[in-house]
Formats: sequence, structure tokens, C-alpha cells
Amino acid sequence: MLPLVDHHCHGVLRSDPDDAAFEALLTESDAPAAPGTSFFDTQLGFAVRRWCPPLLGLEPHCPPERYLTRRRELGAEEANRLLLRATGIGTYLVDTGLPGDLTGPAELARLAGARAREIVRLEHLAERAAEGVRDPDKFLAVLADAIATAADTAAGFKSVVGYRHGLDFAPEPPGPAEVRAATADWLASGAGRITSPVLLRHLLWSAAGTGTALQLHTGFGDPDLTLHRCDPLLLTDFIRAIRPTGCRLVLLHGYPYHRGAGYLAHVYPHVYADVGLSLGHTGARAEAVLAEFLELAPFGKLLFSTDAYGLAELYVVGARLFQEGLDRLLNGWTASGAWSAADAERVAALVSAGNAERVYGR
Amino acid sequence: MLPLVDHHCHGVLRSDPDDAAFEALLTESDAPAAPGTSFFDTQLGFAVRRWCPPLLGLEPHCPPERYLTRRRELGAEEANRLLLRATGIGTYLVDTGLPGDLTGPAELARLAGARAREIVRLEHLAERAAEGVRDPDKFLAVLADAIATAADTAAGFKSVVGYRHGLDFAPEPPGPAEVRAATADWLASGAGRITSPVLLRHLLWSAAGTGTALQLHTGFGDPDLTLHRCDPLLLTDFIRAIRPTGCRLVLLHGYPYHRGAGYLAHVYPHVYADVGLSLGHTGARAEAVLAEFLELAPFGKLLFSTDAYGLAELYVVGARLFQEGLDRLLNGWTASGAWSAADAERVAALVSAGNAERVYGR
Amino acid sequence: MLPLVDHHCHGVLRSDPDDAAFEALLTESDAPAAPGTSFFDTQLGFAVRRWCPPLLGLEPHCPPERYLTRRRELGAEEANRLLLRATGIGTYLVDTGLPGDLTGPAELARLAGARAREIVRLEHLAERAAEGVRDPDKFLAVLADAIATAADTAAGFKSVVGYRHGLDFAPEPPGPAEVRAATADWLASGAGRITSPVLLRHLLWSAAGTGTALQLHTGFGDPDLTLHRCDPLLLTDFIRAIRPTGCRLVLLHGYPYHRGAGYLAHVYPHVYADVGLSLGHTGARAEAVLAEFLELAPFGKLLFSTDAYGLAELYVVGARLFQEGLDRLLNGWTASGAWSAADAERVAALVSAGNAERVYGR
Repeated sequence: MLPLVDHHCHGVLRSDPDDAAFEALLTESDAPAAPGTSFFDTQLGFAVRRWCPPLLGLEPHCPPERYLTRRRELGAEEANRLLLRATGIGTYLVDTGLPGDLTGPAELARLAGARAREIVRLEHLAERAAEGVRDPDKFLAVLADAIATAADTAAGFKSVVGYRHGLDFAPEPPGPAEVRAATADWLASGAGRITSPVLLRHLLWSAAGTGTALQLHTGFGDPDLTLHRCDPLLLTDFIRAIRPTGCRLVLLHGYPYHRGAGYLAHVYPHVYADVGLSLGHTGARAEAVLAEFLELAPFGKLLFSTDAYGLAELYVVGARLFQEGLDRLLNGWTASGAWSAADAERVAALVSAGNAERVYGR
Repeated sequence: MLPLVDHHCHGVLRSDPDDAAFEALLTESDAPAAPGTSFFDTQLGFAVRRWCPPLLGLEPHCPPERYLTRRRELGAEEANRLLLRATGIGTYLVDTGLPGDLTGPAELARLAGARAREIVRLEHLAERAAEGVRDPDKFLAVLADAIATAADTAAGFKSVVGYRHGLDFAPEPPGPAEVRAATADWLASGAGRITSPVLLRHLLWSAAGTGTALQLHTGFGDPDLTLHRCDPLLLTDFIRAIRPTGCRLVLLHGYPYHRGAGYLAHVYPHVYADVGLSLGHTGARAEAVLAEFLELAPFGKLLFSTDAYGLAELYVVGARLFQEGLDRLLNGWTASGAWSAADAERVAALVSAGNAERVYGR
Repeated sequence: MLPLVDHHCHGVLRSDPDDAAFEALLTESDAPAAPGTSFFDTQLGFAVRRWCPPLLGLEPHCPPERYLTRRRELGAEEANRLLLRATGIGTYLVDTGLPGDLTGPAELARLAGARAREIVRLEHLAERAAEGVRDPDKFLAVLADAIATAADTAAGFKSVVGYRHGLDFAPEPPGPAEVRAATADWLASGAGRITSPVLLRHLLWSAAGTGTALQLHTGFGDPDLTLHRCDPLLLTDFIRAIRPTGCRLVLLHGYPYHRGAGYLAHVYPHVYADVGLSLGHTGARAEAVLAEFLELAPFGKLLFSTDAYGLAELYVVGARLFQEGLDRLLNGWTASGAWSAADAERVAALVSAGNAERVYGR
């Protein structure tokens, strides 16, 4: 088995989560489970209980309490190490723009015995660039520098315009006067968080100018987003507008609009699709969801990731569900004669690692 | 096998339907089948012919004419009794807001040898409350009383705002002046049928205030609705707005947007999803559709129903397709090691009955 | 096996495509494959390599270069003949409105040893009718004649309003003054290509008046279209408006909105659904996609086509994937007892040929 490239993830918690925090990291919800229910009773919860207990010396599907007790006995660092080293992931591309006491790329690499590079989240970069700055022109200059610097070192950029606004934004780049005015308003408001579509678009177009690959959140995520406004097809005009810049766009997750993401990867040469969150959260159904990605997306355009955040378990589950699902699909297609065994092996290598290496460099 | 709770159905015809009426009840269309075609030639038609003839002493898949002849020989009451008693349904929650010479909850319970409770359709309740009333204030007072009374006795409320307007309605509660003006217009028009989005929203918010669970039609149904305006995701802002009231929302059917319904049930603690119509009408594909529900919906948030209307056959088919599909899925996941057998048994009990008992009480 | 009726295709290239042209015909993209990728590495590419080499005396899954070399050794005419005669298609309905050095219906029929009829693309008909005409009234008269003439001889009409505008057009027929003004503008502009929604709607309503079946492109296709504006559900109000004319609408392709197309075929008597492009491009997944069509679409309302264009290989692949997928689905449903064997045979005959014969005549 080739080492996987996980081209989109977020690092693990440095310390032990308590039971409630662990359960909260099993869901995209921002609330405790409804009365009488548990987020362990989900496809993701069952997948964690299938794959992870044996890595910590327990039987599969043991009760959550038992697993959490064992995990705490080992301590966060040891549990993280045991779990991460069992993922088969050789390279992590880490989006460092999420809050929490999370391992950065270097620390994650050390724990996992693997390589790691950074994915720079544009909104986070801009919000940090604004710290202590009150002048719009100064901010825009600092931001331009920060983006240029990041482009030199990071593996890629990421945008959460889907969360902050929706993917139904105006496709063309905002004009300089517009950008300056929106910047002034934002700085004056003291809001911190960027939600202006003008600024969000400015970030996209600034990143596009660098030639570095740009990841875009699409599809499901937490309740901050409005799912039907995160349909990747809403990006169609933006995809057309940005095409002449040569910027490569990687559409993350996509579920339940992942067939649309596959279509975009099919018809636009600069567009790629990612399985991400769509597999980990669907557990026993990951094979079926992966199969839908493999309808229109050219096999040189689909990328593996876990989108894991906080729990090393999410890396394990994302990687196992992907590999198991892909194996079963390709074995089935090979057995029926639909695919040749050599092609199946080649496609598995592309989706597992080769495509990411081509898009982000090594 | 545990007795099922069918949390959304409509009662059966008291008398024998003629051949055309029977066929019309096999479809959501409002027209006879196109020339040269038949509504028996559908997944639902084939499912009826699979499961029902043996319950009336005939071989599976016998010709429709033979089945209908036998059904009439037995008479409506006996056929209804034989069919309903074979469903495995122990509790029926009956939406009484549909026209036709249908059994009410008590009569359905007697025929089926089961329990039944009422689901009150808000639009129907309001239209009855307006009978003989011309004064808007009087109507609104009568309506408020009727809703309060219903909340005391009914298992839940149901809204067909999806049919009457679409789910793309303004999320906030309408103001009192708006409601009064819309009421006056409606009463003056003599329309009978409520289609004003202001009034439809008033009904939703009035019901939400009672603490009783509220069912919303989403997804496919008859040609009165415009399907893409019944995508449950269009409810997102309403779901957010109503969250502080504590009102529990049950999104019915959902097909082909059922993955979106599962997402909403995943991220919002007060939202539940239902399989309803999506299984009966997809017949041999019900297992595949059910599997898609079981991707993101937490297992404590998905509910079984038949949405059966008029024909006892639709109860049989809805229940069999659900149980057979669920069994196969869970057996498959257990056999592969993805789920434990104990979890599978527990989830089956939740989706079959336990979740409905928690949402509606016993 | 009954001869298939391919109710929507486009003819084959008369001459040998070079390697790049062949690869370009394997995709809906308008660009070469992204650096490091190939359109042979797609489900369609793998399906071509599975089914076609043996028809030209090579082993399945041989490398593309070897296949293309062999194809050129045989020459276009001989390769076309060998491939087309292996499709099992007995009747071709050929949309003649696409550019390229393509075989027309008679030539295709001769090569294939089959029958062929014409499908007239409305936009193409109108654009030809405008050649040399500068007066709007004259054009409209010429157009009306051309439509009437085509209705007498063609098997059906086709509209690409989805490509030219989107399916979110105003549902009612445009008024005469509107049509005249839009015609004058268009003729004066010298644009050639019709993109005015008024004219596109005029074409639809003119065709509807003839009683000839009308095909509409829906769902995916090349990057000229905006996919979410080609959701067939956007036609709902148009479907309602045109219903009284008796015009039968055939919704082509539909992917990834094919479940919505099935719904429309279910609830509206004058609406039919087509599998088209959705199978050829999804290759090893064609069975799964076909299964989704077979959820709500009545079995008397679903039609087979290949949408093949340019390459005889696309006829082979479209036909094999359809027949193999349908066989497996129906065998599975028969084996489980869900369907009877007699019903399965009958449904296969309907979808393969009978429905098309009923819709278009023989």
C-alpha cells in the first residue's frame, strides 16, 4: 500500500478531550446531541468504534466509555502517536486556520512519523494581518505581502467563503476602490471576522494570482453554513472567470453535491475534486459515496483527504474508509471485467497520492 | 420483530375502490397514466403485487385484475383488516387532514388491531376554524384556541406549507398586523384554501409555541408542489429561527433531497428526518434510498413512516420495504464488521419505533 | 435480445480522428486534459477500452495507442461498420443539428445495417431559416413553414434551451410583439446563434403546436451550460403551461438531477425521461445511475439512448452499459422475488425499444 497524501486536515488536540469534547468532535453540529440521542450513534461514531479500539489494545466496537478510559490511560500524546502511525498517511497538508490547542504541521509530522506541509487559510491570514492595523491601504499592503510570502512556503491556500458568505458570490474580481472601501468598513467595525463578500473575493483573486493551488470548502460542514449555498456548481461562473489566471481550484468535500463537483472537475481543466469529509462522516456508506465521486471526475482529478480535526481517530477513520472503499470498488470493477487490474492499481495510486503530488508538488 | 410506529399516515378507504381509483392511489400523479402505460408498472405497483396477493390468498405478482377481483370478493373491510394486520405496525399516527371517505384513527386502530393517535394538519385545522367566521380577530382567537386544544390531545402537528407555497418562505414569525391583514384578505376572498405565506407562517409559529412536535412535508409529492421549492435545505433559516422555541421539527419524505434532510437532522438538535413516501414509491430500490438516509442522519434522529393513504396495501408495502431494506443493510454492515450486531439491533429498534416514541411520547 | 431504439444520437465522423481528436470526443470538456492527466482515465475511457478492442480484433483494455493504431489500419468506414453493427441498435433517431463531418441518418443506417430517422434541432433549424433573410416577418413565416415541414417528416424535435439560456426560462409562450421585436434584434445583430430567451421559447411553443414529441437537453453536458440551471425541475412551470397542448416532452440525460427527471415523468402524463449521456459517461457506475432512474420513473416512461457523437465507440459503450446494467438490475430484483421474471422481461422491452416506439411512432 502506498503512503497516502492527506491533502486537507487540521492537526490533533495536544491534550485529552473530556467525554463531551470527544463526542462534540464526532459531529459537525455545534450543540450537544438531542435528548435521548448520542453522536456516537452515527456512521462516524460506529466507524471510530470499529477501527480505533484495536489500535489501543481493545476489541472493535467496545463501548465508548471503555475506549475513552483507555485513551486517557495512554495519554493524548501516546494515543495520538498510536493512532496516527496506523493511518498509512505519509504526508499531511495541514490547514492551520482553525482554533484550538492543535498540533501544527511539524508537530503532527513528528507524532505521525510522516511529512507535513502547511495549507494557509486565507481568511485567517487576513484577520491576523489586520491585527494592530487601522489604515486600509496599510492593511492591503500587509495582506499582499503575507499572501506572497505564504505562496512561497505553503503547499496551498484555502478559502472558507462558503461558510462566511456562500458560494453564490459575484464571480469577477472586485475593483480596487470597492476593496478599499470594504476594508475601511471592516477595520472600522472592529468585527475581526471577515464576512464581506468583497473582501472574501479579494482574497480569492489575490491567492489566484500566485499560482498556488486554492482549496475551497464546498458541501456540508457545521451549521454556520447554509448547505444549498455551498453547492459547488454555484462556483461555475467564478471557475470560468478565474480560468485564465491558471489557478487550480480544489473543491473540498462537496457532499451531497459531490456529483456536481465531479462534473466540474470533468469539464474544467483547472478544477479538482476532493473526498474529504464526505467519507469519514458516512462510515459504512463511504464506499457508496466514493463511487459517486468516481462517476464523472477524471481519475487524475480526484484527491484523498480526511479533513480530520482534533481527534487522531478521524485520521484513522478517514484513511481506512477511503482505502477500504476504494479497494472494494476497484476489486469489484476488476472482477467483472469492467476495469483491468493494472488500471485499477494505477488509479488507486493517483487518487491516494499521485494527484495530490502533482497539484501541490512534493 | 418489534411493532413499528408509523408516525405519518392517513387512513384507508372505507369502501372498495374501483380499478381506476385503485390505480390512481398508486401514484402521486393527478392524471390517468399516459396512453399505453399503467401506474401498476412502477416500483410501487410491483411492490404491491409482490407483498399483497399472498395476504389475500393469491400468488405473488399475480395480474392486477386478479388481485382487484379477489380484493372485492373479500370486501373493503375484510381486505383492510387482512392487510393492516400483516404490517407489523403497532402504532399509527394519523394525519386526519386529507379528504376522502377514510378511516379515522380509532377506526384504523380497530381494523388493524393496533393503537392510533392523531396528527393535526395545521392548514386543515385553520380552514375548519374559519367556517362561519368573518371577523379576522375572531378567527385568530378561534384558531389559537383550536391549536391549544389540539396540542393537548394530538401526537403532533403537520404543515403542508411546501405544497401551499414552497419551503422558501420568510423564516421569521410574521408580525401581528401582517397576520391580521392577511387574515382579513383571506376571509374576504372566500378562498377557503390558505395559500398566503403570512398565514402559513403564522400557523407554523403558533404550533411551535405549543411544544408539540411539528411535521413538515418536504421533497416529492403530487404535482401541486414544485419539487425544487420543497428541498428541505430551504428551511435552514427557519430551522435556525425556530430553534430557541424548542420546537422539534420532523422533515417528512425528503426524496430526492433526503441527504439534505439527513444533514439537517445531523447539525440541528431539534430536527428529525423521516423515510415516509421515499421508500414505498421506490420499491426494489427502497434499500438503496434508505441507505442514503443512513449516511448523515444520526441514528437517534431517523423515523419510519409509510405515508400510506387510502389503500391498506400502502401500509403493507411501506412497512415491508422498510423492514426488509433495513435488515439487509444492517446485516451487510454487521457481516463486514463495520457495525456490531448489538448496535445493529439497537439502531433497528430506534428507527422502527424508539425514536418516534421519544419524539411524540407514547 | 430485442433491437434497441437509440432515440437520441448524432452520427459518426466520416474520417479518422487523430489521437487528440479521439480523446477530445471522450469528454464533455472543451479543453485538453489537465497536465499529467488523460481523458482516457475516466469511466468512459475505461468502458471504451473494455468493449471496443475485441470488436476490432484486440484484447480488452489494451493501451489506447494500440487501439487507435488498429482503428486507423482499418480505416474510419470499416471501424464504424464493425463497431456500429455490434451495438444491437436497430433504430437510430439522429439529431442532425451538431457541426462536424458527421454521417446523417441515411448514411448512419447504411453503415450500421439499421434504420434511422431524424430529430430536428430547433435552434439549428431556425438559424438555417434565417440565412439570407433580414425581415423579421419573413423569417417568422419561413420558420413556421420549416417547423411544419419538419413535423411531417422528423421523428421529433429537440431544444437546447438549457445550453443557450438555462431551463429557468419564463414558462408561458411569448407574445407575438415580443417575438417580432426579439427577432428584429437578433437579425440586426448578425449574431447567427440564437440566445434570446424569447426566441428560444418561441421555438418551444411552435414545436409544441405540431404534436411531435419534443426532446429537451437537461443535466450535464459541455462547459457551455451552467449545470444547476439545467436541473429538469426548473421546467416544472413550463411543463404545466404546455400540458394542455398535448405536447410530449422527453427530458434527456438529467444527471445528476435524473431523480428529478424521474419524478416529473411520474407526475406529469406528457413527460418522459431518458438515460442518454448519464450511462456512457459513468461506465462501471452506469448500473447504479440507471437504478436511480428506475426509482420514480414509471416503466412506460423511461427511454434508452446513447447521445453518441462522432465516435462509433460511444454507441457501443452506451448500448452495452445500458443492456448490461439493466440485465443485472432486473436479474437481481427477480432473484430476490421483488419482481417477477415476466415483468422484468416486459420492462426491459419497454425501456429498450417499446417506449420509444410509442412516443415517436415506428
